[in-house]
Amino acid sequence: MRLIARPMVALGFGALLLALAPSPADELRGFTVESAKAEREWETKFRAIPSPDSLREYMRRLSTRPHHVGSPYDKDNAEWILAKFKSFGLDAHIENFDVLFPTPKERVVELVAPTTFRAKLQEPAVPGDPTSSQVAEQLPTYNAYSIDGDVTAPLVYVNFGVPADYERLERMGVSVKGAIVIARYFGSWRGIKPKVAAEHGAVGCIIYSDPREDGYTQGAVYPQGPWRPKDGVQRGSVMDMPLYPGDPLTPGIGATKDAKRLPIGEAATITKIPVLPISYGDAQPLLAALGGRVAPQEWRGGLGITYHVGPGPAKVHLRVKSDWSLKTLYDVIARIPGASAPDEWVIRGNHHDAWVNGAEDPLSGQAPLIEEARAYGLLLKQGWKPRRTIIYAAWDGEEPALLGSTEWVEAHADELATKAVAYLNSDTNNRGYLEVGGSHSLEQFINDVARDIEDPETKLSVWKRDQLRAVADAKTADERQEARQRADLRIDALGSGSDYTPFLQHVGIATLNLGFGGEGGGGIYHSIYDDFKWYTTFDDTSFVYGRALAQTIGTAVMRLADADVVPYQFTNFAETVGRYVKEVEKLATETRDQIQERNRELDDGVFMATSDPWQPLVPPAREPAAPHLNFAPLDDAADALTRAAERYERAFAKAQANGSSFGKPDVGTLNATLRQAERALTAATGLPRRPWYRHLVYAPGFYTGYGVKTLPGVREAIEQKNWTEAGQQIGAAAQVLTAEAGVINQAAEQVDKFAP
Amino acid sequence: MRLIARPMVALGFGALLLALAPSPADELRGFTVESAKAEREWETKFRAIPSPDSLREYMRRLSTRPHHVGSPYDKDNAEWILAKFKSFGLDAHIENFDVLFPTPKERVVELVAPTTFRAKLQEPAVPGDPTSSQVAEQLPTYNAYSIDGDVTAPLVYVNFGVPADYERLERMGVSVKGAIVIARYFGSWRGIKPKVAAEHGAVGCIIYSDPREDGYTQGAVYPQGPWRPKDGVQRGSVMDMPLYPGDPLTPGIGATKDAKRLPIGEAATITKIPVLPISYGDAQPLLAALGGRVAPQEWRGGLGITYHVGPGPAKVHLRVKSDWSLKTLYDVIARIPGASAPDEWVIRGNHHDAWVNGAEDPLSGQAPLIEEARAYGLLLKQGWKPRRTIIYAAWDGEEPALLGSTEWVEAHADELATKAVAYLNSDTNNRGYLEVGGSHSLEQFINDVARDIEDPETKLSVWKRDQLRAVADAKTADERQEARQRADLRIDALGSGSDYTPFLQHVGIATLNLGFGGEGGGGIYHSIYDDFKWYTTFDDTSFVYGRALAQTIGTAVMRLADADVVPYQFTNFAETVGRYVKEVEKLATETRDQIQERNRELDDGVFMATSDPWQPLVPPAREPAAPHLNFAPLDDAADALTRAAERYERAFAKAQANGSSFGKPDVGTLNATLRQAERALTAATGLPRRPWYRHLVYAPGFYTGYGVKTLPGVREAIEQKNWTEAGQQIGAAAQVLTAEAGVINQAAEQVDKFAP
Repeated sequence: MRLIARPMVALGFGALLLALAPSPADELRGFTVESAKAEREWETKFRAIPSPDSLREYMRRLSTRPHHVGSPYDKDNAEWILAKFKSFGLDAHIENFDVLFPTPKERVVELVAPTTFRAKLQEPAVPGDPTSSQVAEQLPTYNAYSIDGDVTAPLVYVNFGVPADYERLERMGVSVKGAIVIARYFGSWRGIKPKVAAEHGAVGCIIYSDPREDGYTQGAVYPQGPWRPKDGVQRGSVMDMPLYPGDPLTPGIGATKDAKRLPIGEAATITKIPVLPISYGDAQPLLAALGGRVAPQEWRGGLGITYHVGPGPAKVHLRVKSDWSLKTLYDVIARIPGASAPDEWVIRGNHHDAWVNGAEDPLSGQAPLIEEARAYGLLLKQGWKPRRTIIYAAWDGEEPALLGSTEWVEAHADELATKAVAYLNSDTNNRGYLEVGGSHSLEQFINDVARDIEDPETKLSVWKRDQLRAVADAKTADERQEARQRADLRIDALGSGSDYTPFLQHVGIATLNLGFGGEGGGGIYHSIYDDFKWYTTFDDTSFVYGRALAQTIGTAVMRLADADVVPYQFTNFAETVGRYVKEVEKLATETRDQIQERNRELDDGVFMATSDPWQPLVPPAREPAAPHLNFAPLDDAADALTRAAERYERAFAKAQANGSSFGKPDVGTLNATLRQAERALTAATGLPRRPWYRHLVYAPGFYTGYGVKTLPGVREAIEQKNWTEAGQQIGAAAQVLTAEAGVINQAAEQVDKFAP
Repeated sequence: MRLIARPMVALGFGALLLALAPSPADELRGFTVESAKAEREWETKFRAIPSPDSLREYMRRLSTRPHHVGSPYDKDNAEWILAKFKSFGLDAHIENFDVLFPTPKERVVELVAPTTFRAKLQEPAVPGDPTSSQVAEQLPTYNAYSIDGDVTAPLVYVNFGVPADYERLERMGVSVKGAIVIARYFGSWRGIKPKVAAEHGAVGCIIYSDPREDGYTQGAVYPQGPWRPKDGVQRGSVMDMPLYPGDPLTPGIGATKDAKRLPIGEAATITKIPVLPISYGDAQPLLAALGGRVAPQEWRGGLGITYHVGPGPAKVHLRVKSDWSLKTLYDVIARIPGASAPDEWVIRGNHHDAWVNGAEDPLSGQAPLIEEARAYGLLLKQGWKPRRTIIYAAWDGEEPALLGSTEWVEAHADELATKAVAYLNSDTNNRGYLEVGGSHSLEQFINDVARDIEDPETKLSVWKRDQLRAVADAKTADERQEARQRADLRIDALGSGSDYTPFLQHVGIATLNLGFGGEGGGGIYHSIYDDFKWYTTFDDTSFVYGRALAQTIGTAVMRLADADVVPYQFTNFAETVGRYVKEVEKLATETRDQIQERNRELDDGVFMATSDPWQPLVPPAREPAAPHLNFAPLDDAADALTRAAERYERAFAKAQANGSSFGKPDVGTLNATLRQAERALTAATGLPRRPWYRHLVYAPGFYTGYGVKTLPGVREAIEQKNWTEAGQQIGAAAQVLTAEAGVINQAAEQVDKFAP
């Protein structure tokens, strides 16, 4: 979580907000005085329960054997979690889906010229690490959803393989047409690399882990240290998830047994060219065999070689063939029915499937989830009666493509659209700072929760530690001042990379994604070394951060489930959207200026004059001048949103001050209105060329994959210099923000009735 | 040279300047219409003479054998250059000095724990490179002026070994007290590394060439490419030259045969601890044996290892012993007597000594110097009569400590203070862009020269190519605008690193340092591989940039020697000084703010909260609040300087417009006044703790070595947080700037007489 202050003046009712935030210790937003007191007591009891020993034992048990989608232990784990939920007294079941999940049958990477070398594509077992030798059960190193292929071609090094890297190659006069590219991990989500390579005419793609990012450059390698050893490989999906996640054959619908499926050939999210991941041990001979231009300074990794871009003389043979059969998913779903609002759902999830043994990913997040459920079981026995229904989900198939969560959301989309209050996600958990991404209508809420959790290392509240880090990390005096003075620390907008995506971006459910991190580090991600031995040697070894995560998310779920009025807060959201609007306006201006400047430099001969004839650079192409865009509709909508948010906040403060008013029976109407607030930010037509993504404020970038693009329709149209579409998307974004203002105004009217 | 525009408005008489600059093609600043015409003709003839074939032949001959100070071939080269000068018809002689120059007798670097390894300290010969095998004549790899010593101690890696690196180590809880440090080259001048190490209590210092800076990370290594091979070592001086350069035993006076000498033990510029340089082949086992904390991200080099800082378990034995006898220098001095102003001297120099064969350093600069002299010989025979005396100097002993130039300047200081108009220096020369540093009173002058020289690669003027690079490199829109619109491109201020230092910073002679560069690159600096084979394979292979350098400097020397009025120009200087004043004021403010902010963060617990207990960081020490400084005297002096410069420029423009007025006989009085302009910037007491450095506008940094500090007394006092001294130095700087304004006003009065 990034923490910084509400700009009081900008909101126009500073004094009032100042009086509101931070809340007095005994006040809880959305609770009456009485219900707040009860809530505080239950939460305190709750936070005393999670136990590091339990967390350790869950992780040990669940990571005992490889448990990827389709493996026997994946099913075994699901059944064990189900039994656990039931043993806690919860109503639980397993929900199955049948999805396309390719597993590797043939994998070849070999250098065929100027010398020969065959990549091992095998991670060796490590003495003293018992699970690393379970070779027979391990998924081999591969990238899921690579198309089958067998190609031999010259090699080109493309750095991270993002669009800017290809622009750089073009200036060097290097084309990847007909070539196999080798890209290093990081710099973008991995699935972007083969996608962009294919767009530029490459016929194959190799992705390797450079030691600079997570190998010996960072520190001692496993088993001496936490970092990636020479033969360690990052598995992972390369499906085109920015188009749509989930089962490639059933976009938009649940992959139930009888669902209508696309033929595999029509699945748009499978890669266009074959892809394999390799270790730096396997990559070094390939990279060392490259000739051509020396790679630009920032492209050079940590191998003890000169990095060249090629093409050639290195020529590589790449062969990938998969088993394309359907596999069954096991989503474990537990439900605590709401006492007075059973049709209002608070949902909490973390996946249980892994690429191999997956101690960090996902069990460091899954173990706290189970522990939260155990604690709820105990509280229920003591008489706790949550107002709303709580749903706990251990998802299957997150690793390949957010399969379990996406299919479940698609299968229950209508019900979720009516009932869901919030979705709270976690995935991996480490030592350090609470890191939060999510809907900004929950920003103030999660700040309040963070003030109630103790950081295990410093004994400060996790909020305070986050705030002090924000002060330390501030790059400008303004940032530092905000870190010190803003009532709430900022939370990140969410792109993709975990199970929150279908909730937030497909259905429009207010979402939070939480985890601790920022200390330690390692290079075992998606390898056989992400196991119990590694985690208990190098990560949250005493599971105190696992406990802190259970305390944080468990408290948040309880508070959301118990509040009389769901504690969304919209002035933080409106202020954040205002910043996004300013950002896209600035982006448009800068893009226009850049085009103009570059054209002027072309006219002036700057590129010719500064090209070393021994290493010539091709001048960039001239681009047509960019038009000015009409941002007025978006500015108006943002203003309307701000006014509505302020109005709601004024009304809400009055009602909150009147201690018991939230107890009135028509609170359900208000809550029903509030549930539509996040939904109002979606458009049925979705984003251009990817209608599955309906949220018009948050989306993963089409060319970043995990990285978020806020106001994505507008921002990406500007980035792509598609000015017509930018104009259309300004209209679309203005429309949802206006609709949002309408929902908030309606809620304000309803709140007014509580304290007239 | 960095190229960008005079801010017209700031000077208050924009229209007039606009009319002046750029000069019409037939007008030359300081020349009458008639003398300008003659000058243009002679310069055109001059520029047709320099020949790449001659340059190649000079370099070949002079680099045939190692020619360091004290070697037979050093003397042989001096005598050959003398003979050349004489053969061109010039009056020439050799001037000798006897200086302390240690040469190595014993050198040991060995790892003694936890394993053992003995460093080779030897650069192997390369097949196909004939001079690389002249082992018997090569100076072994060493750092000159390292004190003798024999120490065994734990090793600590200190990155570049600059003060900020030690602050970082302190935060990590690592002390170098009693340790041997290993620092990598770059990041500061090498002599700073043992100096700062000793200040922190280290007992020895090893300096190595990391492949990231000039080895395989940058490109293919010699002989396949131009970069430093595994066993290549950078020799070099580690004398404390920021204290004073030249012979350590004769500070401030010429090291003539009978000069009074200090005992070696009192020579303050010899290092306090023993130092040796090593290759990355030798460094890798030492660095790989280090334990302790992983080095910070920016400290990691290009070796395929994890960089740790230690201390230990690596323990190292370092032994250095030198022959401390005096050696004789051979400065070759040629003189072309001035026809009408023989007591006004324009001096041009480049050193001839090298560490080994030295093709790039110094012969790529020395060859053009000889070629300029040849051309002058031809012009003289055709009737050219330079107005002023021209002195051409091939310095000896630059590599150890600017010995030849410093001793010559010290020996002739009084005469130089009266007679010297300008000193023009070069050292190494490569392909690319004209790069200029110097006195800003010559900024406009050298811009005008640069407009008359053709760039060999682009056929643009070298000025235009520099300008277009400034546009390309601009980091902000303001910088870009300045690059496009300022009449003159900015030149760099000079720190140290070549023979201009005694002229500029000890005596106060207006100086220019020139060379081409920015294309290509390499890693043979100060190694046996800096030879004819390397230079003619990887650098200015066709010697067209050697010709361009001869054309540039030769033209500049002629124009300075022939001008009726020396073409100093002071508004560029005044504007530049105004920028320096703003910089030191900003530095004071930022330093004060930083102290205040850090103390506040200490109070708030920021450092404790953000310290990972597994890798703790010690909070920085609290510092006393910094006072506000009274910059008014400096601001007033800068304003007076600006007014004087503008006044002179107005008067000068009027005289220049009156075509023949510079021909009047009292021009000598004006020129005598003008020669005092740079001298006025010096103070007899010099800089604090280093009185040899007398210039109060330009000096090498006490902790940067080569890197310039402008307004050094003020700037370094602020950097060192010595507020009392900062106040004193503001006064001292104000005093010289006021004196400078006085000289310029006097010159303006004298100019007024030309065109009343």
